[in-house]
Amino acid sequence: MLVAELIERKRDGEELSAAELDEFLAGYLSGDIAEYQMASFLMAVFFRGLSATELTALTRAIIGSGARLDFDDGGPPAVDKHSTGGVGDKVSLILAPLVAEAGLRVPMMSGRGLGHTGGTLDKLESIPGFQTRIDLEEFRAVLADVGCAMIGQTPEIAPLDGRLYALRDVSGTVQSIPLIASSIISKKVAEGISALVLDVKCGRGAFMQSREDAEALARVMVGLAAAEGLRATALLTAMDEPLGEAVGHSLEVREALDALADGGPADLREVTLALSAELLVSAGIADTTPAARRALEDILASGRAAQRFARLVERQGGDPGIVEDPSSLPSAPVQAVYEAPRSGRVARVDARRIGLTALELGAGRRRVEDSVDLAVGFIVETRVGAIVEGGEPLVAIHARDEAGARRAVERLQDAIQITDAAPDEGLERPLILGRITAD
Amino acid sequence: MLVAELIERKRDGEELSAAELDEFLAGYLSGDIAEYQMASFLMAVFFRGLSATELTALTRAIIGSGARLDFDDGGPPAVDKHSTGGVGDKVSLILAPLVAEAGLRVPMMSGRGLGHTGGTLDKLESIPGFQTRIDLEEFRAVLADVGCAMIGQTPEIAPLDGRLYALRDVSGTVQSIPLIASSIISKKVAEGISALVLDVKCGRGAFMQSREDAEALARVMVGLAAAEGLRATALLTAMDEPLGEAVGHSLEVREALDALADGGPADLREVTLALSAELLVSAGIADTTPAARRALEDILASGRAAQRFARLVERQGGDPGIVEDPSSLPSAPVQAVYEAPRSGRVARVDARRIGLTALELGAGRRRVEDSVDLAVGFIVETRVGAIVEGGEPLVAIHARDEAGARRAVERLQDAIQITDAAPDEGLERPLILGRITAD
Repeated sequence: MLVAELIERKRDGEELSAAELDEFLAGYLSGDIAEYQMASFLMAVFFRGLSATELTALTRAIIGSGARLDFDDGGPPAVDKHSTGGVGDKVSLILAPLVAEAGLRVPMMSGRGLGHTGGTLDKLESIPGFQTRIDLEEFRAVLADVGCAMIGQTPEIAPLDGRLYALRDVSGTVQSIPLIASSIISKKVAEGISALVLDVKCGRGAFMQSREDAEALARVMVGLAAAEGLRATALLTAMDEPLGEAVGHSLEVREALDALADGGPADLREVTLALSAELLVSAGIADTTPAARRALEDILASGRAAQRFARLVERQGGDPGIVEDPSSLPSAPVQAVYEAPRSGRVARVDARRIGLTALELGAGRRRVEDSVDLAVGFIVETRVGAIVEGGEPLVAIHARDEAGARRAVERLQDAIQITDAAPDEGLERPLILGRITAD
Repeated sequence: MLVAELIERKRDGEELSAAELDEFLAGYLSGDIAEYQMASFLMAVFFRGLSATELTALTRAIIGSGARLDFDDGGPPAVDKHSTGGVGDKVSLILAPLVAEAGLRVPMMSGRGLGHTGGTLDKLESIPGFQTRIDLEEFRAVLADVGCAMIGQTPEIAPLDGRLYALRDVSGTVQSIPLIASSIISKKVAEGISALVLDVKCGRGAFMQSREDAEALARVMVGLAAAEGLRATALLTAMDEPLGEAVGHSLEVREALDALADGGPADLREVTLALSAELLVSAGIADTTPAARRALEDILASGRAAQRFARLVERQGGDPGIVEDPSSLPSAPVQAVYEAPRSGRVARVDARRIGLTALELGAGRRRVEDSVDLAVGFIVETRVGAIVEGGEPLVAIHARDEAGARRAVERLQDAIQITDAAPDEGLERPLILGRITAD
């Protein structure tokens, strides 16, 4: 195989055979194919896409590059959830214990935040003592004990994905639907789960800003999962405003605890229940989505989901006392309030700008290697459509220092738009925008 | 500067500023920007092209990466010629001494062959003793003594081009008009010449197969040269059949010697005169193209061009006796003849296939690092449109061994098509297809 010719054929829109891609990827893994050849190939894929055959070959090569877990042991169905990333998205923290309590096993592998979006691992690590870096054996043990376990990506699972992602991150090829899809689905297939729900965020604060792109990504992922024998459904959910009120790691854990205790913001509860219900139906332990939702609501109301979360925290080395008393979670030394600069109607609460402002406060990372401040962030107490009075508190700011709080106040002026009170039209947007299945 | 973001902006069709490109290219030269980042950037350029600003910035960065010669010393105007590469293209060997004899200086830097196309350096090296690797000081001395000098690319001139080309060659980004144009024009500007003629080949045996692509490349190159103060004209010339009859290094030198002695194939003479005349007019030593041609024809008829070539060969270490008696040029041990398999009219003499068949004989290189057989090749004694009898000799094959000759005979069946004698229509194609100037 002449590597340059293969890259040229992809570049010129030809379809490569599975055997050619296998050889190319094996050569990359062995070091025979250089990083610069993979980088130009990935850029060609950005422009040309991947055919179904190529996408399957790439996904299988990623799966085959590492270990593959197996939960066909007669125990409860193993399931997982993936979100494409948003601002204030703490759903995994609620969903994992909730569906575990409903009778599923949740071997959840999550990621860290990058740019304006947060990551589940960082949120978990704001719980004092919580260990997200445990080996696969311990992961299985936690899962057996608690019914759910939450860790980060391990080098044993899909190591090729780790290499490709690192290269994409520095060479401008992250935003490619087939590359995103193969990266996500390969890891979930390798996890050995039998049902997956995908939360494909859509809107100003999401990776996919247009409905069209979000739907395209969802379709590719659901189809790819089905081709690998993994039952997946995707919900397209709105990410124009932050999800819930809390943005920032320990603040989001507090809000997740509220939701686990049958409280918390309505939008967070709604998205969590919708995604969880998909899993119950996919895994075959509920016949219909309404039945699944009723079961899940009962669990939340009973307090059992919160108790399950406490067991998980304790089993992974964390302080379970935070579930009853979140005051031992890290808190920021400086609190400030962003007040409405005028009276009117809230026309926009820009999730992306709020995410970037949280990043500036220290809650996010610009580069993979940055560290994050677990205590800082916001409680966004207003929503699009709200009628506000000038001077009314809109956002509680939790900052490391006064300067950070002042900068955040300035930035929030651009993030939250208040207009003259106008008709409701166009301000309300549904939370669940669509549902994609393989059928 | 975040490198990945800069690559993404190019990828997404944004124009980069000259300052941004300068910083990016300086980072690449210093090693701060990795080969894989440049590779994905180059692939993005393949798809998105370069704006005039970007193209100028890239070209200037390549020029600025090395030495820049200067011939503003009151001596004759310094000129050069570049061909985009064809089969049987030995024009440089004739043009350099011819226009030197007409009163110009020709500091010519040429390349090697790759794929189905030949290169001037390889041809020169088939002359026993001829040195193409001489340093810049010696190059200037040869030029001062002879009026022309012919060497390969030196590391002092445009070293960034050498690095970029090597990377493009292995990462599938050679065929990009702005990258080709900046590579060619930067080196010619750095040569310090004041006039340049470009032979942009067009047709089945050329890099640019369509008239449209050839014209686009010609326009970009001529415009880019003009922006750098270099007067350039381009001729689009046909490359469907080989140029002249000889294909292969020493065979082509023999044919060039015929042409220098006022003989040789008509098409070779025509293209050489047309390109040479452009240089005489551009450099201001002839008022019109017809006047230039008359002067050049007189020089060929006088034998002075051949004598000038003999002086060049001797000055660069070669045996000048080959000019009078080419028998000391390398010759292949096996001669064979490809005969017309049937009677009819020659409908196609496929330059690309003939070039590839010569490559198989050993005359070409698949990869930059391959060595070549200087003696093997073909004399193609037929042309498109000729009426031939079955059994008539069409091609004289010069091979290293019998097996090679037999393979060539088989391959030539696909390269030369004979059809039932048909009307002349469509078989004749003009040799000079167009002329592009900056005005």
